[in-house]
Amino acid sequence: MQDRPLILVTNDDGITAPGIRTLIKVMNKIGDVVVVAPDSPQSGMGHAITVNSVLYCNPITIDDGPQIEYTCSGTPADCVKMAVSEILNKKPDICVSGINHGSNSSINVIYSGTMSAAVESGIEGIPAIGFSLLDFNFHADFKPSEEFIKKITLNVLLNGLQEGVVLNVNIPKLPKEAIKGIKICRQANGFWKESFDKRKSPFGKEYYWLTGEFICKDKGEDTDIWALNNGFVSIVPVHFDLTAHHIIQKLNSWEL
Amino acid sequence: MQDRPLILVTNDDGITAPGIRTLIKVMNKIGDVVVVAPDSPQSGMGHAITVNSVLYCNPITIDDGPQIEYTCSGTPADCVKMAVSEILNKKPDICVSGINHGSNSSINVIYSGTMSAAVESGIEGIPAIGFSLLDFNFHADFKPSEEFIKKITLNVLLNGLQEGVVLNVNIPKLPKEAIKGIKICRQANGFWKESFDKRKSPFGKEYYWLTGEFICKDKGEDTDIWALNNGFVSIVPVHFDLTAHHIIQKLNSWEL
Repeated sequence: MQDRPLILVTNDDGITAPGIRTLIKVMNKIGDVVVVAPDSPQSGMGHAITVNSVLYCNPITIDDGPQIEYTCSGTPADCVKMAVSEILNKKPDICVSGINHGSNSSINVIYSGTMSAAVESGIEGIPAIGFSLLDFNFHADFKPSEEFIKKITLNVLLNGLQEGVVLNVNIPKLPKEAIKGIKICRQANGFWKESFDKRKSPFGKEYYWLTGEFICKDKGEDTDIWALNNGFVSIVPVHFDLTAHHIIQKLNSWEL
Repeated sequence: MQDRPLILVTNDDGITAPGIRTLIKVMNKIGDVVVVAPDSPQSGMGHAITVNSVLYCNPITIDDGPQIEYTCSGTPADCVKMAVSEILNKKPDICVSGINHGSNSSINVIYSGTMSAAVESGIEGIPAIGFSLLDFNFHADFKPSEEFIKKITLNVLLNGLQEGVVLNVNIPKLPKEAIKGIKICRQANGFWKESFDKRKSPFGKEYYWLTGEFICKDKGEDTDIWALNNGFVSIVPVHFDLTAHHIIQKLNSWEL
């Protein structure tokens, strides 16, 4: 690693969201920062990429920080692809995504645009971390997160990450002094019990809002949900080999 | 299982795509079919859900088959949520998604709307299969796929699937007699080396098309890529616990 690492920053809440502005501020203290982030909110985009439409990507100046910034019309995964392939002339030493406004613990990792950027970086062979704060509020207090983000990022730069693994970091909504530390966790087994709020448009057409309630029956004390509920920052190592290796033998007994 | 299983059918290419019309035809021979599918193509949507916008969902009749059909303005994952929560009055016995026009083998599973519908069903506790044919052509020949789809679906209905696991089935673009059989596989370790095709709009604005080349250095003969290249239908069991369990111990040695 060079003295000043090259850091790619992105997110899913859009380039002007307070979460990414905090992340940029923290990263400016660690290395040379290039931001390539969506021009509009991309929450819930999962690992979407733009294949049926065109993409726009343009330089932008948002504050007087030393970072270089680009805004992109695509998804978080598109932003990473655009950064690696079009914008940067060398591979970044790390990609950080977030700070997401809201939790990406448990099954939320599947729906998360923030984490899809981290996973896309992992696929490209770039060590990557997604950061999320458990506060949906646009004006959430990101200050207590800063120290943890810096510490975890420096650890990844120092130790590296095994190929095929990225980190999913969630930070509880607590004052700094109430956060007990950092725990390495597994993804809690949870799901959303969705419901649809059915309404009528001013023109008489029925439409729906997707809403839901998060259900977690996983009582393990090694999960991200347990850690967060007990005042810890959670780190789940995430991989993108989705093979359920333990099932292969069983399926081989089927008559196919 | 009752005599006539309740089968939910969806896809990501949209409700009128030839792939899903073939899948519906095959499923009508096996059980009672309800289709809830996107009203427009959703390729590359990954596990996106619609949280910042409203959803429309309406009954539709496309052909004279016995199935009941709904078209939905959302993503494949939205369609499954809508089906389970608003349309069906009991849990389906199985959800099948596809037949996708194009491969979802190797890392494509991550970007796949077809597979996101299967995964969403798995999260809901519904046995699920995503089917894909390695032919992007709109007028692809889906006929050779039918027998394999029927056989695999009947196996899942008979044997069930372990909680937290769904199947990713890819079918080679070959005449039926050239397909050698079905192989249970792991996801090959591959990635897309993307490039962007930069153009200018009629109004002078620069834009990009995402393109790329699939790279697979994984030479394992137990992978989906190997199976497909050698004339087999591939089945990869897929899970949605993304935890890289083997990394947890190592991360615990970090100074955090």
